Amino acid sequence: MSNRVYLYDTTLRDGTQAEDISFQVQDKVRIAKHLDTLGIDYIEGGWPGSNPKDIGFFEAIQRETLSHSKIAAFGSTRRARMTPDQDNNIKMLIEARPDVVTIFGKTWDFHVREALRVSLEENLDMINDSLAYLKERLGEVIYDAEHFFDGYKANPEYALKTLQAAAQAGADCLVLCDTNGGTLPYEIPMIMEHVRREIDVPLGIHAHNDSECAVANSLMAVVGGAIHVQGTMNGFGERCGNANLCSIIPSLILKMNKECLHQGKLENLRRTSRAIYELANLTPQKHQAFVGNSAFAHKGGVHVSAIQRHPETYEHIRPERVGNKTRVLVSDLSGRSNILAKAQECGIKIDDKDPVTLEILEQIKELENKGYQFEGAEASFELLMLRAMGKLKQYFHITAFRVIDTLRESDQCPVSEATIKVKVGGRVEHMAADGNGPVNALDQAMRKALISFYPQLAEIKLLDYKVRVLPSSQGTDAMIRVLVETGDKDSRWGTVGVSGNVVEASYQALADAFTYKLYKDQQ
Amino acid sequence: MSNRVYLYDTTLRDGTQAEDISFQVQDKVRIAKHLDTLGIDYIEGGWPGSNPKDIGFFEAIQRETLSHSKIAAFGSTRRARMTPDQDNNIKMLIEARPDVVTIFGKTWDFHVREALRVSLEENLDMINDSLAYLKERLGEVIYDAEHFFDGYKANPEYALKTLQAAAQAGADCLVLCDTNGGTLPYEIPMIMEHVRREIDVPLGIHAHNDSECAVANSLMAVVGGAIHVQGTMNGFGERCGNANLCSIIPSLILKMNKECLHQGKLENLRRTSRAIYELANLTPQKHQAFVGNSAFAHKGGVHVSAIQRHPETYEHIRPERVGNKTRVLVSDLSGRSNILAKAQECGIKIDDKDPVTLEILEQIKELENKGYQFEGAEASFELLMLRAMGKLKQYFHITAFRVIDTLRESDQCPVSEATIKVKVGGRVEHMAADGNGPVNALDQAMRKALISFYPQLAEIKLLDYKVRVLPSSQGTDAMIRVLVETGDKDSRWGTVGVSGNVVEASYQALADAFTYKLYKDQQ
Repeated sequence: MSNRVYLYDTTLRDGTQAEDISFQVQDKVRIAKHLDTLGIDYIEGGWPGSNPKDIGFFEAIQRETLSHSKIAAFGSTRRARMTPDQDNNIKMLIEARPDVVTIFGKTWDFHVREALRVSLEENLDMINDSLAYLKERLGEVIYDAEHFFDGYKANPEYALKTLQAAAQAGADCLVLCDTNGGTLPYEIPMIMEHVRREIDVPLGIHAHNDSECAVANSLMAVVGGAIHVQGTMNGFGERCGNANLCSIIPSLILKMNKECLHQGKLENLRRTSRAIYELANLTPQKHQAFVGNSAFAHKGGVHVSAIQRHPETYEHIRPERVGNKTRVLVSDLSGRSNILAKAQECGIKIDDKDPVTLEILEQIKELENKGYQFEGAEASFELLMLRAMGKLKQYFHITAFRVIDTLRESDQCPVSEATIKVKVGGRVEHMAADGNGPVNALDQAMRKALISFYPQLAEIKLLDYKVRVLPSSQGTDAMIRVLVETGDKDSRWGTVGVSGNVVEASYQALADAFTYKLYKDQQ
Repeated sequence: MSNRVYLYDTTLRDGTQAEDISFQVQDKVRIAKHLDTLGIDYIEGGWPGSNPKDIGFFEAIQRETLSHSKIAAFGSTRRARMTPDQDNNIKMLIEARPDVVTIFGKTWDFHVREALRVSLEENLDMINDSLAYLKERLGEVIYDAEHFFDGYKANPEYALKTLQAAAQAGADCLVLCDTNGGTLPYEIPMIMEHVRREIDVPLGIHAHNDSECAVANSLMAVVGGAIHVQGTMNGFGERCGNANLCSIIPSLILKMNKECLHQGKLENLRRTSRAIYELANLTPQKHQAFVGNSAFAHKGGVHVSAIQRHPETYEHIRPERVGNKTRVLVSDLSGRSNILAKAQECGIKIDDKDPVTLEILEQIKELENKGYQFEGAEASFELLMLRAMGKLKQYFHITAFRVIDTLRESDQCPVSEATIKVKVGGRVEHMAADGNGPVNALDQAMRKALISFYPQLAEIKLLDYKVRVLPSSQGTDAMIRVLVETGDKDSRWGTVGVSGNVVEASYQALADAFTYKLYKDQQ
């Protein structure tokens, strides 16, 4: 028996049902190319019969050369009371010229009666003759049994009849869909066993994440005999999303010894995941399994020293296998080993015995007591180490600033203005700028003042700005922590500032962000 | 055989291992109270032996009255080559005076040798005598078998011996931990069966989400006989997080017919989830199963009309069961009943047919589009309703303000000064005040100006102040939401403001907070 599992990606079709996702045709083509490079077997490009944008994709993809993937077009069984050749949806599937066609049909008797409003017999005919018609014309036909698990639980006999109707039409694979995502993993094996007893066509699984079990359900189905797994990259999809291929693929390969993707391709997983986030204009999920930034991030000092000797003590796989890496976090839970590991990560050489390590540790503890936090502010941490070691030059010195927010009778919104005095190498620049709020005004003024000395600061952009008030019971007197994320064309870095005054805290974080850019460019 | 499953929440301990989470003692107490209200059986408050902040929690929680939950303290088995009474970590557990203590010990022979560096025999003694010592002194003792599944796979015989050592010491529950999160759901049943054959003590499960299977693994363990489930709210936790109780609880109750939480409590699930996001200063996950904003959101077309006739066609549970709701993304008709329910909650009478209901609905939609959020700002919501109904008097009118933050060469920290002009009944007050930061200065000036008209404003205190930059990638240009919590001797209330300018947003929230106090006192 073969160990091969076929991967079927529906990011471009079911993934676009997500509330926050909308791809242009060119985005879809770029995603398809990423998926092809990764080695996905089937790429479902869209539903040509329901969406004009999807027709554009099928035209555009004809002009591309893919190295591995087959392109699938999605559609439904023919409508009632007509033949397949009369159905417009089916005509458009053929016109789309895909390598494969995937047809969904109704499994659940309740849906047949209430949503489709046809007889149970007619539904079986619709499945059978739609698939037979397409099989003859396109060669490879996959059948998606919508609501399979719910339908099976309501009426197992009828649910199996719908699969048989598809099997008799020559379907190459029958995909059991958990359309509403309500199935729990322990239900899968028994149902799969019953299906396999009755039907001798390869089976697949299509799971949704409404019970947070889509990945598990997919893996359980593979154990139960499925050789075809449908899902989306990063679990994009309607409601709670589809089964996440970024989690399914590494478990199949690394833990279940299944064959999918070619040798060496798994290392592209994180890169592919992030490229697709980028094209969807969404922020990657930090805590995402396997590919997230935090997936192999360790905070506790005990964990860190154990990890360094034996990674398998606190890591379930080697992160490099999926293109990710171990990250050591610096926090009040951390010890000397974290500092050393962190320094190494930044390419800074500190000797284990060097008293500067203890000096840095002391400074961190003191700063963390004040409310600083270096997780997410790695650039500030790197600057702190460099300063302690005397390896950081002072690029500029801000001697004074003033920010004024004014609301007058006639204004809709207050006006913010900042002035700043900067000294660089003995020369003083005194500058003013307006802004949308005090922090923005200050940012603008700092930039204007420094750019005459350091033109490369024009390249940087503020990407994110986070404010946290600490501790939470003292109202506006409390300490405020500001985390800033800045980027240029090459990279992104995080910095931190803490003060009782939000303007001062923001100023610290901005000053570190500018300094880090100048330091980085010098290396 | 009973159907009872015990819920053990470790948001306050394992949850704080997450990269982006750091709670102050008062946050922890507030979270514990939310968990108690929800009906969680055990709340793990922290590790008193490892973290001074955690000791503060155990002191503070003694002053609170909880209606249901037991407080658990977490710690490790004693260190090697000493007795339990000599171990500082164990002493501090007793001093914390929890209702229950949870001790973790090593299961995996590899860890015993490589991380702990003691003999396999000594580790068994450490487990046994640490638990026996605490059982005698504290009554209820839970044993967390760290790395249980990995340990079992490496050396099943030794893994079972560690459980037996805990059982013989009188442990009330043995919790099988998937510490590295690498276990897949199909592996659980066989291992659980073996454990149950050998050991007759109640079993629990503690899963991590590194394979995106933590929820599934927890449910599989319950099917396999576990009656105790550990997890965190929203799945907070190190790396990819812990098992998410917000997903586990509804499946246990609604799908597996297990008893946990009291009747009617499950409806609080979404509210509790969001309160904890708020206290962690994190944005709720839109696509989160059961409780997310998108969990029951349907895009237009076939799904919507089917849903309206028969919700079960595309919803795996009724969203109201977990305090969520169906969202129809085209035409949202579900809002009206929410407004009516909310008005009733505030003791405001609105007739079902009153056009003001639609007016309020329109205003809310407009404000929510701008980034307002009324969860946690119920006073602002009440004021909005009262204004729409013409039942709120304008107590004061702020015609102008100015805030100046100045940092000069000689200063350590910037100085903030605010001036304000207030009109009350034709009389104008022009006032100035200093503050620790711009928002504090503004708060002080508003108070000084208003107190001559309304002396009762001297009674109010700012209790909490939260700033959230609304998701966007525009840095300091982004919209900012300020949530303020204010209290007097009788009650507490939350208000909200949104603007591109943090000073303006704070001003809105403060003005609402003052107005609410004046309105409330008049009733």
